[in-house]
Amino acid sequence: MTTIYLAGPDVFLPDAIDIGRRKAELCSRYGLIGLFPLDNAVDLATADASRNIFHGNQAMMNDASAIIANLTPFRGPSADAGTVYELGYMAGRGKLCLGYSNDPAIYAERVARSGDIATQNGATVDAHGLIVEDFGLPDNLMLIHTLDLHGCALVTPRQPPADLWRDLAAFEACVALAAERLSQPAVRSSS
Amino acid sequence: MTTIYLAGPDVFLPDAIDIGRRKAELCSRYGLIGLFPLDNAVDLATADASRNIFHGNQAMMNDASAIIANLTPFRGPSADAGTVYELGYMAGRGKLCLGYSNDPAIYAERVARSGDIATQNGATVDAHGLIVEDFGLPDNLMLIHTLDLHGCALVTPRQPPADLWRDLAAFEACVALAAERLSQPAVRSSS
Repeated sequence: MTTIYLAGPDVFLPDAIDIGRRKAELCSRYGLIGLFPLDNAVDLATADASRNIFHGNQAMMNDASAIIANLTPFRGPSADAGTVYELGYMAGRGKLCLGYSNDPAIYAERVARSGDIATQNGATVDAHGLIVEDFGLPDNLMLIHTLDLHGCALVTPRQPPADLWRDLAAFEACVALAAERLSQPAVRSSS
Repeated sequence: MTTIYLAGPDVFLPDAIDIGRRKAELCSRYGLIGLFPLDNAVDLATADASRNIFHGNQAMMNDASAIIANLTPFRGPSADAGTVYELGYMAGRGKLCLGYSNDPAIYAERVARSGDIATQNGATVDAHGLIVEDFGLPDNLMLIHTLDLHGCALVTPRQPPADLWRDLAAFEACVALAAERLSQPAVRSSS
């Protein structure tokens, strides 16, 4: 059976194991095996814990045919750094890349909402004077367009769900897309 | 000559072109060609601007032998999403991965500094109840350990420099490491 790597800051939820189980169950309904990152299956008390998690996650990514990345903004206006790294890694390896965000807002609006913006020489800048990217996209253009090229457009709800971190409707839409794409191997060309 | 992709939120500085020129000059002193992302060389008025930037950056990454990623925290406790994506992409393609951060603080300390943390069931959590990763590392473990595996350990100064966004001492240390590594092709195995 085809395996999919399930990336996301979900691993930082107090009920991460339950979320991982629900995600894997949704995958199996579509005939796919969902691989949830190892963060919760490693002995965190050992000195090598973080390195073991890294190597476990990399091995799972190498084995998987696709990634579904939870790109919901995390501690700032952009997606979780670990998840974004993994999306890049899978794109680099020519795997099918899918992603969703439970916050449909545009990146520039999200930065503006934080309040720390100004206008300098006609450009919107943040408190450090760095320009705010504004292409009307929900996050940095590299993330958004890699999904367009290596998979499908970012999946977002029209309105943020009541529980931003536990609503799996957008995730399930990605699973359905993955099942459809992965059942047509001849259509998928490696980059 | 060997080319290196110079990733970083430097492209969002108002003086990005000058920073890119200084970075490329430092590379040439070490016998390398530094490729600065295209963001400033694309006509931003066209409807396809963001897509053109993406394709230009991906083509530069595909051509380059290595990446030097500026992982200085950007609009939150982690590195810039676009830069992190590019680091992952280059790791996925088995390229030499180097990175630096001009902020040497530990990730968990940086989140704590933002003030929105609490303790729940013995774990440190943020305002949304998500656990704060704390392995004593400067950023998410995937970023830090991919540098260990695919290149060299993250380069950081002992103290943040006076100008976090324009001091290039840590960048130059990465260029020196890249020059050393890339002059020994037999030592480098693709992953």
